Amino acid sequence: MIPTVHSAILKNLIQVLDWVGTLAFALSGGLLGVRKQFDLFGVLFLSFVVAVAGGMMRDILISALPPAAITDTHYFMISIGAGLLTFYWYPRVASLQHQILLFDMVGLALFAVIGAQKALDYGINPLMAAIMGMLTGIGGGMARDVLAGEVPFVLRADLYAIAALAAGAAVSVGHVIGSPPLVPMLLGAALCIFLRLMAIYRGWRAPVAPWKNNNAT
Amino acid sequence: MIPTVHSAILKNLIQVLDWVGTLAFALSGGLLGVRKQFDLFGVLFLSFVVAVAGGMMRDILISALPPAAITDTHYFMISIGAGLLTFYWYPRVASLQHQILLFDMVGLALFAVIGAQKALDYGINPLMAAIMGMLTGIGGGMARDVLAGEVPFVLRADLYAIAALAAGAAVSVGHVIGSPPLVPMLLGAALCIFLRLMAIYRGWRAPVAPWKNNNAT
Amino acid sequence: MIPTVHSAILKNLIQVLDWVGTLAFALSGGLLGVRKQFDLFGVLFLSFVVAVAGGMMRDILISALPPAAITDTHYFMISIGAGLLTFYWYPRVASLQHQILLFDMVGLALFAVIGAQKALDYGINPLMAAIMGMLTGIGGGMARDVLAGEVPFVLRADLYAIAALAAGAAVSVGHVIGSPPLVPMLLGAALCIFLRLMAIYRGWRAPVAPWKNNNAT
Repeated sequence: MIPTVHSAILKNLIQVLDWVGTLAFALSGGLLGVRKQFDLFGVLFLSFVVAVAGGMMRDILISALPPAAITDTHYFMISIGAGLLTFYWYPRVASLQHQILLFDMVGLALFAVIGAQKALDYGINPLMAAIMGMLTGIGGGMARDVLAGEVPFVLRADLYAIAALAAGAAVSVGHVIGSPPLVPMLLGAALCIFLRLMAIYRGWRAPVAPWKNNNAT
Repeated sequence: MIPTVHSAILKNLIQVLDWVGTLAFALSGGLLGVRKQFDLFGVLFLSFVVAVAGGMMRDILISALPPAAITDTHYFMISIGAGLLTFYWYPRVASLQHQILLFDMVGLALFAVIGAQKALDYGINPLMAAIMGMLTGIGGGMARDVLAGEVPFVLRADLYAIAALAAGAAVSVGHVIGSPPLVPMLLGAALCIFLRLMAIYRGWRAPVAPWKNNNAT
Repeated sequence: MIPTVHSAILKNLIQVLDWVGTLAFALSGGLLGVRKQFDLFGVLFLSFVVAVAGGMMRDILISALPPAAITDTHYFMISIGAGLLTFYWYPRVASLQHQILLFDMVGLALFAVIGAQKALDYGINPLMAAIMGMLTGIGGGMARDVLAGEVPFVLRADLYAIAALAAGAAVSVGHVIGSPPLVPMLLGAALCIFLRLMAIYRGWRAPVAPWKNNNAT
C-alpha cells in the first residue's frame, strides 16, 4: 500500500504509519466481533476485513493487482494479531476504547493520504485519486457494516467520510500544484484529524436535507 | 463505458446516451438518500454508487481496468450534479418522479446494451456478455439496496433484471449473426423498455415457484 | 478454476470435481431462493451467485482476470440447470436436503483445495493462498447472505470457514514442502470434510469469547 516516494526514510515512515493504521482498524473490527458474540474465527475475519478491505477496493479500482494486502503478508499478520488480542483480552482492549478511537482517527487519516498518493502514482486523475483516498479510509468500515447487516455508518455519521475525502483532496491538490508528496500528505492527515475532532467534540455535521420524507418510494 | 463502434457519430450518440443513463440512475439514488435522511455526503455517495456501480462491476469482471468510472471524470461530475440537485431541490425533483421512472427505464436499457457491447469488444463470449449487460444495468440498484441493508429489489420485482438481460441478449445475438452493433443495440433497448412498461402498467411478472416454504433451512 | 497440474487425468478429475462443487452450491442457492419466494429470475440469480462468487472474488484478488466463471460458460450452465431444477421440482430437490448438505460439504472441500492451488499457481505466497482457498469455499455463501440481508452465517457457524481454511492450509503446506499437488489436495479435502462432519454430528465449535458484551459501541 506504499506509493513511490522520493526518500527511503519517508518511505519507511509511511510504511510504519500504514501498519499503525492497519492495527487501529483491526482492533476496532475485533472489538465489534467480540461484542456481536462472533466465534474466534469470526473475530479474526472481521479484524482482517476492516483493516484491509478499503485498500483492496482501491487496488482493484486503480488496477494495482494483486492487492498489496494479498502480496504483502504484514497486513494479515497485524490484523490477526490484533484480532487475537481483542478476543483473549477483550476487557483490557475495550478499556482502551478511547485510545482506539484516536488510533482509528489516525488510521483514517493515514489510509486516506496514502491511498490518494498511491492512486496518483498509478496514473489516476487527481479528482478520482482523492475519491480513492477516501475509499481507502472508509472501505473497511463499509465492508464491516455490510457484513453485519447494517447501513454503513459512514453514510450517516460524524464527518467520517468527509474527513477522509478532505485528506485525499489535499494530496491531489498538492500533486496538481507540483508539491513533493510529503507536505500535502501531512497537511491532509492533519486536516482529516482536525475534522474528526471537531465532529466528535464540537458536533460538526454535514447538512441534512430539510425535506420531510413522506413520499414513499 | 464506450465500446469500439464503427462511426464517430454513433460513438458520440452512445456517449451521450450513457451520460443520460448515468444522470437518471444518479437522480434515483439521490432521491433515496434524501428519503432515508442521509446527510449531504451520504446523498452524493448514493447518487454516485447507483450511477456507476454496475459499470464498475462489469469492468472488473471483463478486466477493463481501471474502470471507466475511475478514468473518465464525467460519470463523477454528472452523479455529483444530480446528487446536489436532489439534495437542495428535493421537492422539485421528487415531483418529477414519474419522469425519473422513465429516465430510469431508459438508463437501464442503455446501460444494458452498452454493457453487453463493451463485454463483446473485450472478447467475452456472447452468453456471458449478455449477463454482463444485465449486470451493468442492475448493479447500481443492487449496490444501493445492499448498502441500505435491504434485499436487492432486482431479485424480486417487476422484470427489472429480466428486461436488462433481454437487452443484453439482443446485443449478443446480433453479434453472433454478424450484424453491425447499432441495430441489435436499438432493438435490445426497445425490448427492455417494452418489458418494463408491461411490468409497470400490465403487471407482467416472472413466475414464482408455487411451493409453500414450510421447510426451514 | 483449474490450476496447472501435472497430468491430464488429474486435470480432468479436478475439472469434474469443480463442476460437482458448482452443482452442489448452485442447488443450495436455488433452495434458499425458492424458500424466500423469489421469482424464477431471482432463484436462478441466487444459484449462480452462490456457485461462482467465491471463485470470482479469488480470481479478482489473485489477478486471474477475467474470472474463470466469465470465460468458461460451464459454470453458468451448471448453475442455471441447478436453479431450474430447484424451481420446478422444489419438493423433490428439498427432499434431498440431506444429500445436498453432503454435496455442499464436498463442494466446500473441493473449492477450497482448488482455490488454494490456483492461487499458488498465480504466484501468491502460501499464507495468502490458504486464505484464497478459504475464500473460494465460503465466498458464495457470504455473497448469498449479504444479498439476503443477513449476517453471513460463515461468520458464526459450524466450523464452515475453518474447515475451508484447513483445506487451503494443507495445500499450501504441501507446496512449501515440495510435494506434488495431488496429495495435499486430497488430504486437505479430507480434513475439511472431517471437520464439517465433526461440527455437524459432534457439535465441534470454534471458541466464543467469554466476555459479556454490555459495552455498547
